[in-house]
Amino acid sequence: MRAIDIIKHKRDGQPLTEDEMRFFVKEYTSGNIPDYQAAAFLMACFLKGMNTNEVHIMTKSMMETGEIFDFSDIDAPKVDKHSTGGVGDKISLPLAPLVASCGITVPMISGRALGHTGGTLDKLESIKGYKTDFSPSEFKRTLMDVGASIIGQTRNIVPADKKLYALRDATATVESIPLIAASIMSKKMSEGLDGLVLDVKTGSGAFMREYEDAQSLANLMVSIGKEMGKRVIALITDMNQPLGRAVGNALEVRESVNVLMGKGPEDVTELTLTLGAYMLVAGGRVKNYDEGRKLIDKALTNGDGLAKWNEMVKMHGGDPDVIMEEGFLDVKFKHNITANKNGYLTNFNTYDIGVAVSLLGAGRAKKEDKIDHKVGIYVNKKIGDSIDKGDIIFEIRANNDEKMHEARSILEKSFVISSQKQDVPPLIHKIIGA
Amino acid sequence: MRAIDIIKHKRDGQPLTEDEMRFFVKEYTSGNIPDYQAAAFLMACFLKGMNTNEVHIMTKSMMETGEIFDFSDIDAPKVDKHSTGGVGDKISLPLAPLVASCGITVPMISGRALGHTGGTLDKLESIKGYKTDFSPSEFKRTLMDVGASIIGQTRNIVPADKKLYALRDATATVESIPLIAASIMSKKMSEGLDGLVLDVKTGSGAFMREYEDAQSLANLMVSIGKEMGKRVIALITDMNQPLGRAVGNALEVRESVNVLMGKGPEDVTELTLTLGAYMLVAGGRVKNYDEGRKLIDKALTNGDGLAKWNEMVKMHGGDPDVIMEEGFLDVKFKHNITANKNGYLTNFNTYDIGVAVSLLGAGRAKKEDKIDHKVGIYVNKKIGDSIDKGDIIFEIRANNDEKMHEARSILEKSFVISSQKQDVPPLIHKIIGA
Repeated sequence: MRAIDIIKHKRDGQPLTEDEMRFFVKEYTSGNIPDYQAAAFLMACFLKGMNTNEVHIMTKSMMETGEIFDFSDIDAPKVDKHSTGGVGDKISLPLAPLVASCGITVPMISGRALGHTGGTLDKLESIKGYKTDFSPSEFKRTLMDVGASIIGQTRNIVPADKKLYALRDATATVESIPLIAASIMSKKMSEGLDGLVLDVKTGSGAFMREYEDAQSLANLMVSIGKEMGKRVIALITDMNQPLGRAVGNALEVRESVNVLMGKGPEDVTELTLTLGAYMLVAGGRVKNYDEGRKLIDKALTNGDGLAKWNEMVKMHGGDPDVIMEEGFLDVKFKHNITANKNGYLTNFNTYDIGVAVSLLGAGRAKKEDKIDHKVGIYVNKKIGDSIDKGDIIFEIRANNDEKMHEARSILEKSFVISSQKQDVPPLIHKIIGA
Repeated sequence: MRAIDIIKHKRDGQPLTEDEMRFFVKEYTSGNIPDYQAAAFLMACFLKGMNTNEVHIMTKSMMETGEIFDFSDIDAPKVDKHSTGGVGDKISLPLAPLVASCGITVPMISGRALGHTGGTLDKLESIKGYKTDFSPSEFKRTLMDVGASIIGQTRNIVPADKKLYALRDATATVESIPLIAASIMSKKMSEGLDGLVLDVKTGSGAFMREYEDAQSLANLMVSIGKEMGKRVIALITDMNQPLGRAVGNALEVRESVNVLMGKGPEDVTELTLTLGAYMLVAGGRVKNYDEGRKLIDKALTNGDGLAKWNEMVKMHGGDPDVIMEEGFLDVKFKHNITANKNGYLTNFNTYDIGVAVSLLGAGRAKKEDKIDHKVGIYVNKKIGDSIDKGDIIFEIRANNDEKMHEARSILEKSFVISSQKQDVPPLIHKIIGA
C-alpha cells in the first residue's frame, strides 16, 4: 500500500477502504508518511468530504495509536460530557461532581483555552494548588475515591490526534466536520467510557456557527459512538450569548460554585441539570430523562453536588474555601460598559466577546502565552432583556490598563440594542440519540 | 501576509491576489513556507482550480525564481518547440536542425524519460560522446555557431518548478491543467525566446488522454505566452498510436536521421514539417504557414537539415556517422509479435506500449535507473492498416531475456484487430494561436 495512491483515491472522490484509512493514520503517526503527504490528504478530505464509514475507521484507527483507559474494575457506569466550546461555558465544573454524586463515575479529560474560547483546565487552575496533570494511576484513584476527576490530556492518549491536529492547524484544514468528529471522538472513546453526552454549540460564539453544521457534527459523533458500542447522546445548545454572567477563569469557578449552592444563573443551572440528567441516562443509571432530572435536581438541592466538588478539589490539591474569599477575584482595573439608549438587547457578537476576554489575559493567542486567572468580564444582560440607557451591560475586570482599553473597544461594539424586542433563542435546540 | 491565509482563500475558492500568489511561490522556493503548507495549497489548487490570472502570475513568479537566458545579442529569432510527451515522439531531433537551417535559432532545453514516455536527452545520449549538460556559455556558443542546441535543464532554471514538481509528484497533484501549464511555461519562458510552438498530445499514449483536457491545456499555455508578450502557437496532435516505427532511444535517433534523409515514416516527417513551419511563423521568419511550409520542405529536400544535424551533433561531442553503423542498434534478443487473425488494426493501448518499452530498459521507473540505449521496439503497423494473420505487429529488441518476456506479455495485449475498419485518427487535431 502506498500513501500516494490513498491520496489519489481521496482526491478523486473514491471511498477509502478500511485498510487504506487505517494504513494512513498509523503510518503517519509513526512517522513513515511525511507531513506533506498527510497535508495533501487532509486538504483532499476537507474538500471532497468523508463518508460515515471512513470517519468511523479513522476515529478507531486514531484511538488505537494511543493508550486506552480500562476502568472495567470500577463498578459504576463511566460517563463523560464533551462540549465543542463556547464563551462562559463552565458547565463541566458543576456538572462532573453533581453527576458523580448520583452514582456515575466521571473520568473527564479536558482542554485549555484556545482562540476565543476558555478551557476547563485553565479555570480549575485558578484554584491555587489544583493539579491537572495527574498520572493515570492518580486519575484512577480519584475516580475510585471521589467519582469525578478532571485532568489534562496525558501524553499517551491518541498521539495521532496531536500530530494531525497540529498539521490541520498549519494547513487550513481545521474546520472540517468529519475531521473534527474523528478528533473529538478518538479522544473521548479512549477514556474507557460506557456513555458520553455531547454538548454541540451553535451560534455567534460557537465554532459551528450554523445550526446545520452543528447538527451534522452531532449526528456524525453519535453514529461513531454507536458504531463503537457506546451510548452517546448529543445536545445542540445555544451559543448566541455567553453562558451565565461570568467569563474568565476565576470568575467562572466562583459562578460554578454558586450553581452548586443553588444560586447560580438560570441558564448555567438549567444546562447543567439537563446535561446531567442525560449523563444519568447514558450511564444506564435511570430509564429516562425525567427520572434522571429528578435525581440530579435533588443532588443540587441537598448539597451533594457541592460536597462532591469540595472533595474533588481537595483530592486535586486545591483548597475549595479560597473560591469564596474576596481575594480570589482581585484585579487592578474595573470598567463598566453601559447602554447608550433604551430598548431591548437583541444580539451579542459572542465570538468578539470571547476574543475581548482572551485579550484581557484570560486566554491565549499562542500556546506559550501565560494566563491571568483573575481577569474577565461579567455580562449583566441577556438577549431579550429590556434595557434602559445607562444600564451596565458588561463589567470589565483587568490587570493591565492597555489591554483593558483594547477589550473595551471590542466589547462596546459586541451587542445590539433595538427598539423591537426579538425572539429569545432557546437554550437547547435539539437532542439527538436519547 | 501569511501562508495559512492564502491556503484558506484557495480552499474557499476565493481568487488569489497577485501579491498572494507571488508571496507563496517565492517564499516556498526560498524555504520559508514548509512543504506541508505547500502540499495543502497544491491540493486546494488541484481541487478548486485556478483562474487564468492566477496561472499567469504563478508562471511569472516561478520563472523569476531562476536564471533567465538573454539571447538578445543573437540576431535571429529564437523559437523553441515543446511536446507534452508521448510514445515514439522523437520530433525534436529532426525538427531543431531543420528549423535552424531556415534561419531560426532553436535553444531547446529538454527532459529525460519518465513513466511511459521517452526523453529527448536520453535519445541523444545514444550517440556516444553527445554531451547534454552544457554550461550556459557552451549553449550560447553552439546557438551562435550552429543555430540549434539541445541540452538538459541547467541547475538555475526555475528552481520553483523543481521544488514544486517534486512535491506534486509525492502528493498526487501532478495531473492539474493549471499547474502543468505553469510548470511548462515557466521553464520555456526563461529560455529567452521570441516564439514557442507547443505540441499538446492527446490519446491513449498522452498525459492528456481526453481531447478536452488537451485543449484546455493548450489554450491556457497560449494565453500565458501572450500575456508575456511572446508568440505562442499550440498544435493538438494525436497520440493514439506511437509516432513513427521506432520506439527506444537509439532506434529513434536512427529514424530521425532517416527523416532528415527524406526516407522517414510519413507521420514523423509530416508532423516535423508542420511543427517546423509554425516555428517559422512564430519566429516571424515567414508571414504564414504556407510560406513556412515551403521553406522547411526545401530544407528537407536539399539536405540542409541533415547537414545542420551533423553540425549540431559534432558541436555536442558526438560522431554523427555512428548512427548508421550496424552496431548502433545491436541487441542480444529479438522477438516478433504477430497477428493471430485477419482484419484491420483499430486500436493501440499506446500507454502500455510505452510502459513495455520502458520495462525493456529504454526508460526509467525511478530517477536513478540506468537506461539501455539500444533496446526498444519497431511498430510495423498503423491504425487502419489491413492485417493478415501472421503479419508482424511489433519487433522487440532486448538485451535481457526476462525483461523481454515481461514486455512481450504487455505488447501482446496492446493492440486490437477487428473485422470492421474504423476511422483513422487525424495526425493533427487542432491549431491554436496561429
